[in-house]
Amino acid sequence: MRILITGAAGFLGSHLSDRLIKEGHQVVGLDNFVTGSPENISHLMGSENFVFFKHDISNYIFTPGKLDAVLHFASPASPNPASPYAYFNLPIQTMKAGALGTHNTLGLAKANNAKFLLASTSEIYGDPIEHPQKETYAGNVDITGPRAVYDEAKRFAESLTLAYHRQHGVDTRIVRIFNTYGPRMDLEDGRALPNLLKQALLGQPLTVYGDGGQTRSFCYVDDLIDGIVRLLYSDEHMPVNIGNPVEMSILQFAETINQLTGNKAGITYIDARSSRDPQRRRPDITRAREILGWEPKVDLREGLERTIPYFKQKLGLA
Amino acid sequence: MRILITGAAGFLGSHLSDRLIKEGHQVVGLDNFVTGSPENISHLMGSENFVFFKHDISNYIFTPGKLDAVLHFASPASPNPASPYAYFNLPIQTMKAGALGTHNTLGLAKANNAKFLLASTSEIYGDPIEHPQKETYAGNVDITGPRAVYDEAKRFAESLTLAYHRQHGVDTRIVRIFNTYGPRMDLEDGRALPNLLKQALLGQPLTVYGDGGQTRSFCYVDDLIDGIVRLLYSDEHMPVNIGNPVEMSILQFAETINQLTGNKAGITYIDARSSRDPQRRRPDITRAREILGWEPKVDLREGLERTIPYFKQKLGLA
Repeated sequence: MRILITGAAGFLGSHLSDRLIKEGHQVVGLDNFVTGSPENISHLMGSENFVFFKHDISNYIFTPGKLDAVLHFASPASPNPASPYAYFNLPIQTMKAGALGTHNTLGLAKANNAKFLLASTSEIYGDPIEHPQKETYAGNVDITGPRAVYDEAKRFAESLTLAYHRQHGVDTRIVRIFNTYGPRMDLEDGRALPNLLKQALLGQPLTVYGDGGQTRSFCYVDDLIDGIVRLLYSDEHMPVNIGNPVEMSILQFAETINQLTGNKAGITYIDARSSRDPQRRRPDITRAREILGWEPKVDLREGLERTIPYFKQKLGLA
Repeated sequence: MRILITGAAGFLGSHLSDRLIKEGHQVVGLDNFVTGSPENISHLMGSENFVFFKHDISNYIFTPGKLDAVLHFASPASPNPASPYAYFNLPIQTMKAGALGTHNTLGLAKANNAKFLLASTSEIYGDPIEHPQKETYAGNVDITGPRAVYDEAKRFAESLTLAYHRQHGVDTRIVRIFNTYGPRMDLEDGRALPNLLKQALLGQPLTVYGDGGQTRSFCYVDDLIDGIVRLLYSDEHMPVNIGNPVEMSILQFAETINQLTGNKAGITYIDARSSRDPQRRRPDITRAREILGWEPKVDLREGLERTIPYFKQKLGLA
C-alpha cells in the first residue's frame, strides 16, 4: 500500500512509518515540525519507500498522488504546562489539527477511496469515573478546562470520522491510544514516565505528587504500533482502545525505576499539582483482544531497558 | 453596534435579528438556507438596519465590512430522524458548521476586535445523569452515537471559543440554549412540543412514548432571546445556561395542550422509540439569575397561546 502518515516525524508517527516500511509498504510522511522532530525520521531519508513533505495538514488539502491509506497522527500531545510544545500552549493549533486536519485528511481518504485511521486518545475519557475504561464509556471531560483543547478536538475528530464512514462510506478506523513510552518520546512531555526516568538517570530524587497512590498504565511503543497495524488491517470501524492494562501506582513505578537504574537518591513527596491530572486511567482491552487478537507483550522492566539508552543519549550521558 | 448573525434566517436567528434591530443596532444576516427559511426574515427585507447575504460560513471567510459583534447561530438543530433537515441527515454539514463555521466566525471577530457570542446547546450534556444540569457538569455524550454530530460539534465549538478568548483575548460569550418554542419554529423538528401541538390542532390523538413520565422544560422564544441579549451586553465569558427550569412530564404537557386547544381526541401511548432521546433535561439557571439578572417570564399557557396562531397558519387552519 501507499500510505500517508500525518505527524510522521512525531514519536508514534515515526515508529509507525518504520513498521509499515518494514512490512513492504510505501510511506508518504507529512509533518509541520511544530512538535515533531526531523531527528525522528532522519534514518528514513533516502529510503526508496519513504518520501517526506513539510506540511501543515490543518491549512489546506495536499494531494501527493494516489493513496491506499491515510493515517492521521498529527497533533500536539504533551500535557506538560511548562513545555512550549504542550497542547495547553498551542491551543488553537491543537484544535485545528483535530478538526480541520481531520476534515482535510478524511477528504483525502474519500477522494482516493483509501482506508483512513484516526489516532485518538484516552484523553477523550477525561478524568474518568468508570474504571477500567470501556470504549462505550462517555467520559468525563470538562469542556471549559485547559485540557479541553486536546480532549474535545479528539472527540470531535472521532465523531467526524464516523460521520464520513456512515455518510460517505469511507473505510475508517479509530484507535484510542493510552499512555505510551519508548525511544523517541519527548523527554519534556510532562508525563510521569519521562519525568521520573530522567530524574533517576541524573541521580536525582524522584518527584512524586501527593502520596503516589494515583495510578498509571504504560504501554511500550512496539506493542502499541503492533495494535495499530492490526487495526489498520482489520475491518473494525468503531473505536478500539490500545494500551497496557497493567496498572500500577506512581509510587510502585518510582521504586521500580530507582531499582532498575540503580538510583540511590530516593523519592521526594510534594503536594499534588494544581493542574487537574487524571487520578487513574486504564484501558479495558477486551475489544482489542477479541477483534484484533492483540495484547501487549513487553513488560515494564523490558520496555524500560529498551528505552534507557535513548534517554541517556538525549541527556548526554551516553 | 453593527452585528453579524449567522443562521439569521433560522428560528432563533430571526428573532434575535428582530430584537437587536428594535434596540437600535444594525444587523448583517447570513444564512445558507440549508435549514433556515427566507420566510423568517422576509419582514426585515428593505429595512435600513438589516442587510442579508446568502452564504455558507463553513466554507470560507466572509468580510462584510466593520463589525462590532459576531453571533454564531448557524447549524442544523432538528433531532427528528424523519426530517431531511435533521442533523442526523446532515451530519457533515452539522460538524462543519460547528467546527469550521466557529473557526471562521471567531476569526472574523478577532480581525474586527468584535464581541463574539456562540449559540451552544443543552445537547452538550448528552443524556445527563445529573439533574438539573449546572454549567460545570461534564455531560454524558456518546461520541459514537448518531446525535454526536451535533453534540460533539458544539462541545468543540465551546472549547475553541474559550481558546480564542484565552489565547487571543477575543471578547467571547457562550450561551447553552435549552428547549425553546414559539412562532417560526420548525413544525417538523421532531421535538415533543411541535409534534403534540400539531396533532392537537389537527384534532388527532396525541402520541406519547412509553408512559409519558419522561420530562421536558420548554422556554418561550422571547424569554430566551432576552437572556441572550443580556449575555451579549454582559462581561461573562464562561458558558451560561438559558432555558426554562419548570419541568413537567410529557403526559402533563400533553394534557395541558389538549385542554388549551379543546382537542377531544385524547392520548395514544406507544412504545418508547429506539432513538435514544434524553429522558430528562432541565437547566440550572442560577448563573443566569446571578450574572444576568435573567429568568423566564412567559408561562407555558401564555407561550402556547402566542404560538398557536403560527401553527394554525402553517397547517392551513387560519
